[in-house]
This record gives sequence, structure tokens and C-alpha cells, in this order.
Amino acid sequence: MFKLLMPRDTQFNVMFTEMSANITQGATLLKEIFADFTDLPVRIQQLKTIEHRGDEITHTILIKLNKTFITPFDREDIHALAASMDDVLDYIYAAGLRIVTYKVTSPPRACALTAEIIIKQAHQIAKAVKNLEDHENVLACCVEINFLENEADRVTQEAMAELFETETNPINLIKLKELLETLERSTDKAEDVANVLESIVLKSR
Amino acid sequence: MFKLLMPRDTQFNVMFTEMSANITQGATLLKEIFADFTDLPVRIQQLKTIEHRGDEITHTILIKLNKTFITPFDREDIHALAASMDDVLDYIYAAGLRIVTYKVTSPPRACALTAEIIIKQAHQIAKAVKNLEDHENVLACCVEINFLENEADRVTQEAMAELFETETNPINLIKLKELLETLERSTDKAEDVANVLESIVLKSR
Amino acid sequence: MFKLLMPRDTQFNVMFTEMSANITQGATLLKEIFADFTDLPVRIQQLKTIEHRGDEITHTILIKLNKTFITPFDREDIHALAASMDDVLDYIYAAGLRIVTYKVTSPPRACALTAEIIIKQAHQIAKAVKNLEDHENVLACCVEINFLENEADRVTQEAMAELFETETNPINLIKLKELLETLERSTDKAEDVANVLESIVLKSR
Repeated sequence: MFKLLMPRDTQFNVMFTEMSANITQGATLLKEIFADFTDLPVRIQQLKTIEHRGDEITHTILIKLNKTFITPFDREDIHALAASMDDVLDYIYAAGLRIVTYKVTSPPRACALTAEIIIKQAHQIAKAVKNLEDHENVLACCVEINFLENEADRVTQEAMAELFETETNPINLIKLKELLETLERSTDKAEDVANVLESIVLKSR
Repeated sequence: MFKLLMPRDTQFNVMFTEMSANITQGATLLKEIFADFTDLPVRIQQLKTIEHRGDEITHTILIKLNKTFITPFDREDIHALAASMDDVLDYIYAAGLRIVTYKVTSPPRACALTAEIIIKQAHQIAKAVKNLEDHENVLACCVEINFLENEADRVTQEAMAELFETETNPINLIKLKELLETLERSTDKAEDVANVLESIVLKSR
Repeated sequence: MFKLLMPRDTQFNVMFTEMSANITQGATLLKEIFADFTDLPVRIQQLKTIEHRGDEITHTILIKLNKTFITPFDREDIHALAASMDDVLDYIYAAGLRIVTYKVTSPPRACALTAEIIIKQAHQIAKAVKNLEDHENVLACCVEINFLENEADRVTQEAMAELFETETNPINLIKLKELLETLERSTDKAEDVANVLESIVLKSR
């Protein structure tokens, strides 16, 4: 009924869709980087461009929020959704950056696995954002995002145990431990996105 | 007056009470583990079961939230309270898990002390949740939880100084530093619970 | 119009102004400490006094919030603003404390640079708090705080790369890495303050 009375605000939808496409692009590039370290500086620069594009979209969303009187859902939630989606991408870039800063040459296999999990979370975020008015679907996406975060926890956990088992150089251990943690944190931030999406759906019931 | 008109929603109270009992159980098991490392794998598995039970209760609270029209306090606060209580338990389990992953054999005495502080915080959380309609008591519990968090900070701080003073093996230092930090983070999350409780009381005045 | 009808609540303004002055004082002392390690224990004690003063102001704000029926902006936002300002100071003190705990003697030059950035953020927070009713100015301060946070990221990033390039003692590396991260986290918390300020302005439009 409400939908009949009020035109759907497509612009926010468009921007959040663009944002999730951008996260997917970043996660995909990160996975490709882990598969092959050729041309590392160029590709980390591409990742930085994607991260910067994320900042721009976030900023555009906040500017629009300032100029819009009626929003499709609570102002604070639009703000929180934009901020948490931006966080996912920030950690994707932070992981890439650490490969360069730490001059990592042989990352644990868990890095590529976690990058793969981040891609799957990005797809679920895209699907949830697209269907934000269809509540049931959104909650199913949130469940899947949380499931994937648990999966990333398990993968990271096992890799960490193996790292402490086998790596005897403390400085290498510090580097790879932090790389694994940064990747895992990106999946945590995707869980934060799921929490905001869930909260939007809960409020609008 | 409001209380006369609306029946108190006991179900949320029951679930939050169960949640705090679960945190107390986890913290108590963690303290016992630090006192004696016998049968470590079995007991970390028990801790995992408790942590998993926490996830289930949190999920049940959110499902009920979806189906309830009138809630005893703001939907978002029920959500935030469940999430932050879950976080306390997550770090309790994370601390236990690190003992196994890092094959820790001689943890600093501060670990058992901090586990003891977490138990005390869990008791205050239980008390606050039980009296969530009696505002003064809740605020007193919050003050105590914050006091205990300061205490944990001090204990951790001293243990960290001693660790850097005495531990010459860098990999051991990394392990024990992170174990201490994980325990301290559980007390920080209890402070987050206190902040949500405080915020609920502030709003309802 | 609203301003004509309701007297501005100057007391919250006064307290938030005091809070920002306190952050500026802490950041300034921290910068002085990095410039010269003379009398370190005395000056870290002074920093602790400033941090403790921050806790007191935060507490006073929350007490007043309990006793005030009409507040200049949302209760939850006053709560969040006080808490996030307190966090900035907590990390300033945490950085100072680490110099003592880790017995740091030659901190990277980036430490003093980041302390300088924190001072600049503190000035912007003070300006924003002073003009909380003049929305445009507040948003400009938030943009500047976020710009400064990016600057701190860059400085920290470069220092970290150099640290991993040159420091061969793993325990020294752990200490200096954490010192750099703690300082950077203070600038992140200033960004959280900016987010609360931004959110207050967005809501009141």
C-alpha cells in the first residue's frame, strides 16, 4: 500500500547498487592478485582506484542525504549502510597494501580462499541491496553473509595454527598473521553490513 | 502507570537472562581452564558449545523481534543488547581457542585474574538484565561493569610490561600478548553491553 | 524559528567545549613528549590526569543527561558524542603509556607527525562543537577531520614500510608497530566523532 502512495526512491538504490558492484570488483581483483603476483604495483594502484571510487560514492550518498527530505528508509540507516559498505572495501585495499608494504612473496593459501569468500559476501550484499524492499530475501542474504563470515573465521583459524606451527622467522610471522587478520576483518565488516540491512528490515515491519 | 496498562514482556527478559547465564558459564569454564590445563581439547570443545549456544539465543531473540509488534524497549536496542552480549562470549571463546592454537603452556597469571573479572562483569550483566525496568539499579550495575573494565586494563597493562621485560622469545611474546589482549577485549565488550543498558535507561526516562 | 522559542542549552555546549579543550591539551602534551623524553614518568602521569579528567567530564555529561528533560539534540547523540570524544583521549593516553611500558627510546619520526595531526583534529572538533547549531560549518570541520585522518593513514603507512625495511629486532618491531597503530587509532576515533557530528546535523535538517 505504502509503495502505491510513495514513488520508490531509485537514486539511493542506484548508488548502493554501484557501491556493491565496486566492492565485488575490489574483491575480485584482490583474489586475482593472490593467484599471481605479476605487475603487483600496477594492480595495487588499480585496487587503490577502486577504494577511492568507494569513498566518492559514499560521499555522494551523504551529500544526497543532505538534500533529500523524504528518504526510502531512516537517514541514520542510509548513513550506517554507506559507512559499513565502505569499511568492507577499506579492508580489501588494506590487505592488498600489506602485500606491498611487507613485501610478501608466499602468502598462505588461506588468503586466496578468504578473498573468494569476500567475493561471495559481495554478491549477497548486491542481492540484498537490490531487494531492500523485499524483506524476506534480505534476511536470507544476511544469514548467508553471516555463514560466510563463520567460514572465513574457520579458514583463518586453521591457517593461523599452521603458521605458528611452521613459521620460525618472527618477522615473517608478524607479516602473515596481520595479512590473514586483515582479510578476515573485511568479512567481519560484511557482517556489519548485514546487521544494518537486518536492522532496516526490522524497523520497517 | 505504563506498567499497569501493558503486560510486561517476560519472554525477552527470559531470553536475556538465559544469555547472561550462558556468559557466566563460559567465563567460569575459561577461569577453570586457566587454573588447570588438563583435558584441554575436551574443555575448549565445551567452551565452543557454550559459544554456539550464545549464537542460538541471539538468533532466537532476533527471530522473536521479527514477530513481535510491541516490544518492552526499542527494537534497535534489543538488537544491540543481544549483539553486544554475544560479543562478550565470542572473546571468551577466542581466548580459549588461542590457548590451543598457540599451544600455550604457561600463561601469565593475569589471564586467570582477567577471567575472574569477566565472571564478575557477567554477574553484573545478569543483575542489570533482571532489573531492566528498575533504572537506578541498572545504572549502578553499569558503573560496576565499567569499574571492572578499568581493573582489567590495569591488570593487563602490568602483565604486558612484565612480558616485555622478561620474554625474550619473540614468537612466545606474540602469543601471550595476543592472549592478554583477547581477554581484555572481552571486558571491553562487557563495557559495550553496559553502554547499551545505560542508553536504554536514558531513553525510557 | 525553533531557536527563538527554546533557549539554547548552554550547559551541554560548555561541557563539550571543555571536553575538546581537554583533548587538545592531551594531544599537545603527547607531541611535546615525542619531541623530548626528559622526565617521562612525570609527564605520562600528567597525561593520565588529563585522561582521567576526560572520564570525569564524560560522566558529568551523562549525569546531566539523566536529569535533563529537553536536550539540545537527541539523547543518544549526546551519549555517542561524549563517548567518541572520550575514545580519542583514551588512545592519546594509550600511546603515551606504551612509550613507558615498552621502554621506547627512539620512536619513528612519524609519531610526532601523527601527534601533530591529532592536535589539528582536536582544533576542528573544538570548532565543530562550538558551532553545533550552524550546520554548514560543522560539516566543513568533519570534512577536515576526515582529511586529517587520511593524512595520518599515509604517514603511518610510510613509517610502517620503513620499519619493516630497517628494523631487524622482532621485539623492537612489535613495540614500534603498535605505537604507530595506537596513534593512528586516535585519528580514527576523531573520525568517529566527525561521524556523530555529521549525523546530528543530518537529523536536525
